Amino acid sequence: MTEPTFDDAAAAVQPVDEASGRAGAEHHDRLTKPRRSLGRLEDLGTRLCAMARTCPPPVPEPVTVAVFAGDHGVVAQGVTPWPQEVTAQMVANFCAGGGAINVLGRHADADVVVVDVGVASDPAVTSPALRRRNVRRSSGDITVEAAMTEEETTSALDVGAAVAAEAVAAGAAMLVTGDMGIGNTTPSAALIAALTGSAAALVTGRGTGIDDAMLDHKTAMVEKALARMGPERRPRCVLAQVGGLEIAALAGFMVGGAAAGVPVVVDGVIACAGAVVACALVPDTVGYLVAGHRSSEPGASVALAHLGLDPVLDLGLRLGEGTGAVLAVPVIQAAAKILRDMATFDGAGVTDKDG
Amino acid sequence: MTEPTFDDAAAAVQPVDEASGRAGAEHHDRLTKPRRSLGRLEDLGTRLCAMARTCPPPVPEPVTVAVFAGDHGVVAQGVTPWPQEVTAQMVANFCAGGGAINVLGRHADADVVVVDVGVASDPAVTSPALRRRNVRRSSGDITVEAAMTEEETTSALDVGAAVAAEAVAAGAAMLVTGDMGIGNTTPSAALIAALTGSAAALVTGRGTGIDDAMLDHKTAMVEKALARMGPERRPRCVLAQVGGLEIAALAGFMVGGAAAGVPVVVDGVIACAGAVVACALVPDTVGYLVAGHRSSEPGASVALAHLGLDPVLDLGLRLGEGTGAVLAVPVIQAAAKILRDMATFDGAGVTDKDG
Repeated sequence: MTEPTFDDAAAAVQPVDEASGRAGAEHHDRLTKPRRSLGRLEDLGTRLCAMARTCPPPVPEPVTVAVFAGDHGVVAQGVTPWPQEVTAQMVANFCAGGGAINVLGRHADADVVVVDVGVASDPAVTSPALRRRNVRRSSGDITVEAAMTEEETTSALDVGAAVAAEAVAAGAAMLVTGDMGIGNTTPSAALIAALTGSAAALVTGRGTGIDDAMLDHKTAMVEKALARMGPERRPRCVLAQVGGLEIAALAGFMVGGAAAGVPVVVDGVIACAGAVVACALVPDTVGYLVAGHRSSEPGASVALAHLGLDPVLDLGLRLGEGTGAVLAVPVIQAAAKILRDMATFDGAGVTDKDG
Repeated sequence: MTEPTFDDAAAAVQPVDEASGRAGAEHHDRLTKPRRSLGRLEDLGTRLCAMARTCPPPVPEPVTVAVFAGDHGVVAQGVTPWPQEVTAQMVANFCAGGGAINVLGRHADADVVVVDVGVASDPAVTSPALRRRNVRRSSGDITVEAAMTEEETTSALDVGAAVAAEAVAAGAAMLVTGDMGIGNTTPSAALIAALTGSAAALVTGRGTGIDDAMLDHKTAMVEKALARMGPERRPRCVLAQVGGLEIAALAGFMVGGAAAGVPVVVDGVIACAGAVVACALVPDTVGYLVAGHRSSEPGASVALAHLGLDPVLDLGLRLGEGTGAVLAVPVIQAAAKILRDMATFDGAGVTDKDG
C-alpha cells in the first residue's frame, strides 16, 4: 500500500459534525449534576462528540505521541545557548526512554515514536521507536535563506501525514504532537508572526531560557527573517521560507489526524506554529485540535487565540517534546467517560430542579 | 484498636521536610531538560519530596477519595433551588457508581468512599462504599442558630480524621477530598469570610447555578450568619457557629492525611472552606495540601490565596464531590515520576549548557 501524502490527507479532512456536538451538550444536561457544572470538561466532551460524529464519543485510547526532530541553521546567529548536538543527543535519550516525554508518555499509557525529519547528524541509535524519515540534515538559516525548498517542504508535510496514518492504522485513537530541535522557537515565532499578523516582539520568547540581551537579539533575528521573506503570505511558501522541517511535519501530522477523524493534542509553541500552518492550509483541521496546555512562550498564546483554542492545562511549561500535551491526555479521556458512564437524573432517581 | 481522634491527628502533624524539597529542586536541575522548563510540575514534585521526606518521592498511589455528605438547615432560607432530598439521592447515586466522582474516580484508579456525616435522612442504601458516621441529621440553620454544638463539631472532626486513618491503613498514599450537601456553599462562604477576613459579597457565589436575585439573597444570608456569630474568631467556634458537619469532617480528614504524611488533594469551595479551618486549627497541615483545581466559586480563590496554594487545574468546574481534585491526580503522580524516572544529563550523555 502506498503511504498517504499530505495532499491525500488534506482532501480527506471533513468538518466536524456539529449535530453530534449538540447531542453531547444535551446529554450533559441529563446527567446527575447541575447544568454546566463540569465547565470546560463539558466543552471538551462536546467537541469529542463532534469529532467522532457520535454521542457518547469513544474514549480516545490508545494514544500515540510523535516527537518530530529537526535542526535549524539559524542557531549560527546565536539565538540559543544550547549546542546543536543536543538535538541528536536528545533523540538518543528519547529512544532510550529517559526523556520527560518518555516518562509522561508511559504515565499516560501512550506510545512514543521519534521521527528524524531534519536532524543535522544521523542519529547513531537503533530503536523500534525511531522513524528514519530525514528529508534534509537541518533546515536553512532563515535570516539569510529559505528554511526549505518547496520540494523539501512537501516531503516534510508528507512525513507528518504518513506518521499520523501509520499510528492510526496501528490503533491509535488520539494523537499527541511533540517536537525536539535546538533553535526551533525562532522559526516558530517567525511563522506565528507571519500567519497571525503579529509583531515579532509579541511572539518571540525565551525558549529554553535566555537572558534579556539574547531575547532582544533573537527578536531582531525573527524580524530579519520576516523582512527577508517580504510580503509573501501563502501558507506553504511562508512555511518554506521561515519555518522548518519538523514544524512542517507537525502540520502534516495534524492534518493527517484530522483526516482520520481523531483528536490531535497540540503541545507548546512549536506545535502551535505547526497548528497555525495546518489550519491555514486545511481550515477544517482546527475542529480536531485540542490545545493540551498554555506554554509560557508568548507565541503559543497568540497562536491559540488565533485558532480559537482554549488550553486544557496552564502549568507554566516550556519544554516541548509533547510534555504539556500528553499531561492533558487523562483530562481529555475523562471528558469522554463522563458522557459514556454517568447516570442520568431519570436513571438514578435524582430530582432535577430543571427537569 | 481505638480509632485516632482529631486531637490525636493534630498532635501527630509534622512540618514538611524542606531539606527534601531542596533535594528535589536540585535533582530537577540534573534532569535532561532546560532548568525550570517543567514549570509548576517541578514545584509539585518538590513539594511531594518535602511531604514524603525523601527524594525522589514515592508515586502517590493508590488514591482514596472520601465524599463527605451532609445537609444544612439554611436551605429553609431559600439559598438554593435544589430540594434537600437531593443530598440523600446523590449519596445513593454515588453508592451505585453513577455520579461524576465515580466516573472520574475509576478513571484515576481511585477508590471512592461515601461518608454520611450529616445527611438529613438515613441513606436507604447498602453499599461497601458507604460509611455510616452520621453525627446529626442536618446542620442547623446558621442564620438563626449554630450549625453544630461543640460536641457535634468534635465528633465531625473525629469522623474525618478516622476516615483518613482508615484509608491510609488500607494502603492509600494520597487522599482526595469530596463533598455532597445541598446548600453547603452558604456555610462555606461564611467560614471563608470569617477566617480570612473577607466580605461576604467577595466569597459568596452561584453554587450549583442561581440567578442574580437569589445570589443577592444568599449573600445577605451569609452576612446574617456572620452578624449572628459576632466577633468570635476562634476556629473551632467559628466552625461550630457558621460551618457544617461535612465541612468539619473534611477539615478532620485533611489533618488526618497530614498526620499520616500523605498528600491531600483539595477540591472546590467546600473543601477549600474545610482547608481554611484545618490550617487555622493545625497550621502545618497546609504543607500536605495540594489544590486540585480553581473552582469557579469566588470563595475558593479567596481561600486558596489565603492558604498560599496554587491550583493544578482551572477548568471552570463548580460541581464539588471531589471531581476537580481527582482530575488533578494524574498530574500530581506525573510530578513524582519525573523525579523518579527521568535521565540525568550525565547519565544520558546529553550536553548541559549550565553543566
